[in-house]
Amino acid sequence: MLISIIGLGLIGGSFAKATTARTNHTVAGYNRTKSVLEEALRCGAIHKIVDSKTLNESDLVILGLYPELSAKYVKEHAAEFGKNTVVIDTSGTKTKICAELQGVAEEYGFTFIGCHPMAGKEKGGFKNADESLYCGASFIMATTEQNEKTAMVEQYAKDLGFSMIKRTTPAEHDSMIAFTSQLPHVLACAYILDKDAPNHKGFSAGSYHDVSRVARINAPLWDELFIENKDFLIPHIDSLIENLQLLRGAIEASDHQKLTELLTIAGETKKRID
Amino acid sequence: MLISIIGLGLIGGSFAKATTARTNHTVAGYNRTKSVLEEALRCGAIHKIVDSKTLNESDLVILGLYPELSAKYVKEHAAEFGKNTVVIDTSGTKTKICAELQGVAEEYGFTFIGCHPMAGKEKGGFKNADESLYCGASFIMATTEQNEKTAMVEQYAKDLGFSMIKRTTPAEHDSMIAFTSQLPHVLACAYILDKDAPNHKGFSAGSYHDVSRVARINAPLWDELFIENKDFLIPHIDSLIENLQLLRGAIEASDHQKLTELLTIAGETKKRID
Repeated sequence: MLISIIGLGLIGGSFAKATTARTNHTVAGYNRTKSVLEEALRCGAIHKIVDSKTLNESDLVILGLYPELSAKYVKEHAAEFGKNTVVIDTSGTKTKICAELQGVAEEYGFTFIGCHPMAGKEKGGFKNADESLYCGASFIMATTEQNEKTAMVEQYAKDLGFSMIKRTTPAEHDSMIAFTSQLPHVLACAYILDKDAPNHKGFSAGSYHDVSRVARINAPLWDELFIENKDFLIPHIDSLIENLQLLRGAIEASDHQKLTELLTIAGETKKRID
Repeated sequence: MLISIIGLGLIGGSFAKATTARTNHTVAGYNRTKSVLEEALRCGAIHKIVDSKTLNESDLVILGLYPELSAKYVKEHAAEFGKNTVVIDTSGTKTKICAELQGVAEEYGFTFIGCHPMAGKEKGGFKNADESLYCGASFIMATTEQNEKTAMVEQYAKDLGFSMIKRTTPAEHDSMIAFTSQLPHVLACAYILDKDAPNHKGFSAGSYHDVSRVARINAPLWDELFIENKDFLIPHIDSLIENLQLLRGAIEASDHQKLTELLTIAGETKKRID
């Protein structure tokens, strides 16, 4: 296949490196910052640079851009994709982009499938991109359709090392992602804003590091994701605050029975669901 | 030295395994469950079983028990410790136990130093104890005194692989530990009590796993720690809720400027302090 990857940051760069390392597909790349594009060519992560002809001939176009830029790119290049081209995005919310780009795809005759690779790192950019980033991760496809094109994307994801293909709807995706990904980022940031955080050294161990890891946040990206998905995210923040209040109440009242009960439910839930 | 270790769970068991693996000291052990004591002897983690004579001759006695049981053990055995014996505990709060046991130590003529090894695992018991558990961790001593006895404990901790000795007061310890260790456990439990937690598979990745890791909690132990330390813990829970409300407010108002500002402060703080 001919695969075009637009945006060679952590996500797009890892798709490029994984595709050249693990498949025989031809990879074309595009990146706004030219030095990154040259580095990607030099290190063999991509075989060539994307142009209009490449877009037209591509079997698969992967958007490794911020959500707003992904939609903009597809709209600007809609007439260049071929009739057999499948365009997938990789952004963290799906309701808005799927509604918008499925309309564009129908109009111009290509296929759009909203996707979300469940992997990342707290350090971005092509230099942190990794051909094994997706090994063992889940690949979410926000469509319940089953056809030749979805089968092709599934097979490609498996070839890159993804261990699970999760099929869902855009709305279910956004609701679940608000809990599994956005809420951990919100609470890591809330945690690290504590006035004692700067004095943690010597007093901290694994639990501090794990809970605060993703506070090393890409602020403009997550600002966009949180606000776009606020209808799903806010109920989860409220649920978290409510559960914190429950625990706080039992602690303040020195209610050992209630506190042990809440902790036991949490501990048993965690063991059961993982 | 002759070192007695009372309680061979994850913490005491790791002290035993690390001491026999990394030093030439003689290790005596005690554990309520006899099968664990036999296993510790069999695998060479301890050289012999603690008796009254051993306690009297010990240079160092390490309490690997729950906080309440540590205090109880020292009071019951106060007359058996030698004049040169240093008794240390390993429990997660220091104000109460230090006040209580320093009094007992003065009365009976041994030395008590409140300590806290900053390492753990979400799975307890001797079978999970590990001779390398303390490698690279911080060893906190809740005393600011400097003498022959504190120097001996410091050297011993370094020999076991601890990379940092943190000297502090019991009150500062309890205030900082409320933030670095107890609050992460509270928030991991509050997070996992979300109604969508059981459906996370296929939607979850690193941030879900890191934030919720310590929800696999030892409920009776942390119930005791949270309530004992509530005067320090509750203000940190309140600060966390306040910061969550701040982030929630910016998200609900779609206030990109305010939200980016808060996330940027969190992200830059995290990078600066680690």
